[in-house]
Amino acid sequence: MSFNTFGKIFRFTTWGESHGPAIGCVVDGCPPNISLSEKDIQIDMNRRRPGKSKFTSQRKEADNVKILSGVFEGKTTGTPISMIIYNQDSKSRDYESIKDKFRPGHADYTYFLKYGIRDYRGGGRQSARETASRVAAGAIARIVLEKLIGKKFKVTGAVTQLGILGCNKKNWNQKEIRKNPFFCPDKNSVKLWEKYLLALRKAGSSCGAIIELRAAGIPVGLGAPIYSKLDSDIASALMSINAVKGVNIGAGMNAAFLSGETNSDEIRKISKNTKFKSNNAGGILGGISSGQDIIASFAVKPTSSILNMRKTINKKGKNTKISVKGRHDPCVGIRAVPIGEAMMCCVLLDHYLMNRSQCG
Amino acid sequence: MSFNTFGKIFRFTTWGESHGPAIGCVVDGCPPNISLSEKDIQIDMNRRRPGKSKFTSQRKEADNVKILSGVFEGKTTGTPISMIIYNQDSKSRDYESIKDKFRPGHADYTYFLKYGIRDYRGGGRQSARETASRVAAGAIARIVLEKLIGKKFKVTGAVTQLGILGCNKKNWNQKEIRKNPFFCPDKNSVKLWEKYLLALRKAGSSCGAIIELRAAGIPVGLGAPIYSKLDSDIASALMSINAVKGVNIGAGMNAAFLSGETNSDEIRKISKNTKFKSNNAGGILGGISSGQDIIASFAVKPTSSILNMRKTINKKGKNTKISVKGRHDPCVGIRAVPIGEAMMCCVLLDHYLMNRSQCG
Amino acid sequence: MSFNTFGKIFRFTTWGESHGPAIGCVVDGCPPNISLSEKDIQIDMNRRRPGKSKFTSQRKEADNVKILSGVFEGKTTGTPISMIIYNQDSKSRDYESIKDKFRPGHADYTYFLKYGIRDYRGGGRQSARETASRVAAGAIARIVLEKLIGKKFKVTGAVTQLGILGCNKKNWNQKEIRKNPFFCPDKNSVKLWEKYLLALRKAGSSCGAIIELRAAGIPVGLGAPIYSKLDSDIASALMSINAVKGVNIGAGMNAAFLSGETNSDEIRKISKNTKFKSNNAGGILGGISSGQDIIASFAVKPTSSILNMRKTINKKGKNTKISVKGRHDPCVGIRAVPIGEAMMCCVLLDHYLMNRSQCG
Amino acid sequence: MSFNTFGKIFRFTTWGESHGPAIGCVVDGCPPNISLSEKDIQIDMNRRRPGKSKFTSQRKEADNVKILSGVFEGKTTGTPISMIIYNQDSKSRDYESIKDKFRPGHADYTYFLKYGIRDYRGGGRQSARETASRVAAGAIARIVLEKLIGKKFKVTGAVTQLGILGCNKKNWNQKEIRKNPFFCPDKNSVKLWEKYLLALRKAGSSCGAIIELRAAGIPVGLGAPIYSKLDSDIASALMSINAVKGVNIGAGMNAAFLSGETNSDEIRKISKNTKFKSNNAGGILGGISSGQDIIASFAVKPTSSILNMRKTINKKGKNTKISVKGRHDPCVGIRAVPIGEAMMCCVLLDHYLMNRSQCG
Repeated sequence: MSFNTFGKIFRFTTWGESHGPAIGCVVDGCPPNISLSEKDIQIDMNRRRPGKSKFTSQRKEADNVKILSGVFEGKTTGTPISMIIYNQDSKSRDYESIKDKFRPGHADYTYFLKYGIRDYRGGGRQSARETASRVAAGAIARIVLEKLIGKKFKVTGAVTQLGILGCNKKNWNQKEIRKNPFFCPDKNSVKLWEKYLLALRKAGSSCGAIIELRAAGIPVGLGAPIYSKLDSDIASALMSINAVKGVNIGAGMNAAFLSGETNSDEIRKISKNTKFKSNNAGGILGGISSGQDIIASFAVKPTSSILNMRKTINKKGKNTKISVKGRHDPCVGIRAVPIGEAMMCCVLLDHYLMNRSQCG
Repeated sequence: MSFNTFGKIFRFTTWGESHGPAIGCVVDGCPPNISLSEKDIQIDMNRRRPGKSKFTSQRKEADNVKILSGVFEGKTTGTPISMIIYNQDSKSRDYESIKDKFRPGHADYTYFLKYGIRDYRGGGRQSARETASRVAAGAIARIVLEKLIGKKFKVTGAVTQLGILGCNKKNWNQKEIRKNPFFCPDKNSVKLWEKYLLALRKAGSSCGAIIELRAAGIPVGLGAPIYSKLDSDIASALMSINAVKGVNIGAGMNAAFLSGETNSDEIRKISKNTKFKSNNAGGILGGISSGQDIIASFAVKPTSSILNMRKTINKKGKNTKISVKGRHDPCVGIRAVPIGEAMMCCVLLDHYLMNRSQCG
Repeated sequence: MSFNTFGKIFRFTTWGESHGPAIGCVVDGCPPNISLSEKDIQIDMNRRRPGKSKFTSQRKEADNVKILSGVFEGKTTGTPISMIIYNQDSKSRDYESIKDKFRPGHADYTYFLKYGIRDYRGGGRQSARETASRVAAGAIARIVLEKLIGKKFKVTGAVTQLGILGCNKKNWNQKEIRKNPFFCPDKNSVKLWEKYLLALRKAGSSCGAIIELRAAGIPVGLGAPIYSKLDSDIASALMSINAVKGVNIGAGMNAAFLSGETNSDEIRKISKNTKFKSNNAGGILGGISSGQDIIASFAVKPTSSILNMRKTINKKGKNTKISVKGRHDPCVGIRAVPIGEAMMCCVLLDHYLMNRSQCG
Repeated sequence: MSFNTFGKIFRFTTWGESHGPAIGCVVDGCPPNISLSEKDIQIDMNRRRPGKSKFTSQRKEADNVKILSGVFEGKTTGTPISMIIYNQDSKSRDYESIKDKFRPGHADYTYFLKYGIRDYRGGGRQSARETASRVAAGAIARIVLEKLIGKKFKVTGAVTQLGILGCNKKNWNQKEIRKNPFFCPDKNSVKLWEKYLLALRKAGSSCGAIIELRAAGIPVGLGAPIYSKLDSDIASALMSINAVKGVNIGAGMNAAFLSGETNSDEIRKISKNTKFKSNNAGGILGGISSGQDIIASFAVKPTSSILNMRKTINKKGKNTKISVKGRHDPCVGIRAVPIGEAMMCCVLLDHYLMNRSQCG
């Protein structure tokens, strides 16, 4: 069982509610003797935290990570790394007006029916605030992989579709991603996206997004058939992120439309290096990494906490209406980029260690 | 770890290679006192087995399941149910010509690089033959759920896209699915699909498919946050099926294109029953079932074992070409229907039992 | 894998080092809607904490538990319960003199060789301080079981052997256990034990102990064959406690000396109640609880951190001698009583929930 | 969960009942490219199988292992190894007379109450017949460890106590163990044990035993704190064997009686080799192997299926008496030797692979 724990060898357990005193994460199975500091982890934390632009939630959270264990004199010791992030700006009063109603498309309905108890403060445990803990775990996984594999290892995410607006992936520019508030890889799309999102917010509405993840430098052989396939674990990891409804590996759903010739990536040996002529497989064959870049993408549905009035029921089962005020992201998909990267890093490290045990 | 084991409480372990003496499955965690016979399981087995029409592999396999343990006087005892399926028509000679080459888009490349050993007979363990074991496990899960939930419980799968040809989902007809060799729910599409597939086969090519799964009668509350979400486990289960490259829950990847208003399924109380005005969520909110039908779909890539010549390398790392003769399915996606249903049934039973332990 | 996580459905993860800022515990899988407060947990914490008598370590720790998540308005919510205990009296300087030497019989040797790094401050992670976290988890398990089973449920531990001195188990008195500093159930033994332990401490030596655990009110049917047997899980749980070297269920090692007639506990029906004429089985048959009291005992070896000079080697592999000053327990077995109880409660709750999922 | 599966990385799942058509085992996580044949496994199987002497059950079983998967051209492939052992001599009629009664001290009582169904044929799943599958898995683990560690690796078990009769462990002779039907390491004890056991059998009674296991050549560093300690996993493994009631590591329960000086094993460096002056720790410190021999022992209770009349109840809850005829071992402890060895080999390989993943 793994209700709040992710991973098999490199494992992390997250805890905490949106409006409790703190949230946090215990990372277990981290190899010893890896240099690690709070500062290293903070880099990824800052990419996810809210309140940085007008396009994400205005909740102000420094999201400072504090390490409580597992690191001694600047190095990991092989024991669990406990991290804590205190909640600062948690205005519970924002939620008074909706504490007895269910938001359509939101987990508050199913949580209440499952558990028979409701922590209405900001969604409690089902809040996307939980993902801050994942980013902390993912930052550690990234650092460990950089040590084990070397600097060629790199995981990058970007938003490639913002609601109805796509970007041109041929213009993919790694540096551009960090420059705009949308993690958009295509400079030309940024202006339009800005206008679109401001208009949506003004209209009290929201939109979804598609995020693409690319992992470079992955050795061949990661992935354990049949039920710990690398793609199967990536799918599980990404689908566990709040509001995600679809996951693709390589060509993904589009693979259905291709012919066998087009889809299968031809292999060539070019001066001792194995090269593939395309990457429809997304770097994974039979659940095992092929040495190509791992490519995965996932869709995030539009925020369900919107200003526009919607029909719903309340805790007593009466019909009513709801309009959610507050500081919600008009597109939660944007901040899903560092979360997706974090999950990808964790899956890859997990499989790296697993492969070492089996075929080491 | 769970290399060849799937599930948490209701668990199954599969074993066996495409061309070994037999394949099989051990089901653990099945509740006691459920009526079960080989005949019950055979119904699902027959839906998956090859050689039934000219549109699937011509390999002749009766796929008769034999129960070796766990059932006493017609009832499950709570102990492991071991099932064996003998391989009958395994022509290893078919594979002689490709035993030293790698099929582009096929797992034989990554298996060899990971394990340093190659069972070239029909793909060995990575063959889709393994899925027969899953169907046997899924048949048991289905029977147990019918007993626990009642007859309103029903899992149905259908092919909704065959290569470039879709079907009209508005014509979805449950009975039609069992009548045509494509598991197509739309009678009007069958003829065209026939022609298309015969043409593809004649051309030595192959195509992909999209399969949609619908589960009815699922109680509210199944799914355990955060890392055992129902949708997360469904994604993992479906992505573990051979050749699957994408998984959608409800609106899936299309959720990215919807507005918050359109996407969120409004809730109404109509004479004591909770009704949703749409089902973009696919019956899952925050990883927990909402009481609506569970809807999931997945894409299967085109068969990589095709007659048409492709560039590749051999075991020695030399450039070469490959053309795969043999009895391959022109569209492996078709036989993925009962496999997808089986995985869905297993995930649902697993979560049903899990929920009973937590909120029982 | 479960390096720092214990349990299958009711699971806890502990973290923290003896001399870091804090230690803690994340409890996952706790059923919702159970009344729970820090005060409830503190009762068990106080029974374990050091510095209460001259017979245990003089380290002063309030061991105040703070709940950071998982409880809302006084009730569990079904989400992870994170608890933190700040370290207060951690005199790292005590350890300067031995930071490069290994204590014979102590884990500092194996930890260093395994991980290649040494947190010499009070044993770091291998310190018995970790067990405070277990007691916190066990306190929750106890409270949950009292709610689920009712007040007839009771787990009690006692020291029945202190070094070479046994007690008379026929004098077992539940109330007496809480009155003396040794958790001794036999009033008549207390005086002698006092003298013995003071003499040992004065001599710079230490001694071992045997602890017996009794669990009453356990329903029949807990335990899942074959590899999740109740006794198998109890053995694993108790052997995981620092310094434990042996575990008995019921007659335990002595079962070897009994005849079949003497050992097997005869069964009688006395006015609708099933009664056993003895309890050599310790309440467990075939790994499943029989409805009798669960009886388990375990041996704790003498503290290896002693004043008396011992031969050893240092980090550089040179021969040397060691004498450990500091505030160590002359008999760590004494404080193992609440720890043993805690582990027993956790195993029992885990199996209670497991059984509900299977045979619910 | 792991009802019928043992292990974390090297895992095996057993299935089958005493009187069903067959029993078997699926080994998962076995490293690839290890030479393996049925003949190799049969060596250990033959040591456990019944009917070899008048001191064990007269049931005649060849216990021939057949490998169904996971081995190709004489080598493991990294995929699951499925093994089957057909039941031959299963006289169900022996059990007719007791099918409605419960044997005191036997699992048939608890199984029936837990599952509500009874496979009365020879104990069904709770029969010690299941252990044949473990021996098959253990044989593979032993072969893999011999390959990975080298020939210095050796696991040996012996009976050191037969009922009330001990042997002189100072006379421990490795070769002697294989010469007598008791796995007794002390030649001088054999005659007396023979007389004793024949007398017991004649009297319709039974006795218990203590088995000691010694593992040589184990590298330092195996064992993963805190809840996957090597000793914790050994305790769990041994306690899972039918009829085991106690487990000791090194000095075991006797550690309670030792002083700190006597118990802690002093360490010396003698010409570059680390030597310990004693081995009370049984080769494990803080849950991690120290490089010394691993020493564990366990007690097996006397057979509960005895001829002598005992009081009990039947399925309807009526008081009655029982006398069990049939072909039972007068001391099941004897055949527990190869089973104990098998479990030890499995735990050691599991931790060997686990350590490679973490500190590789």
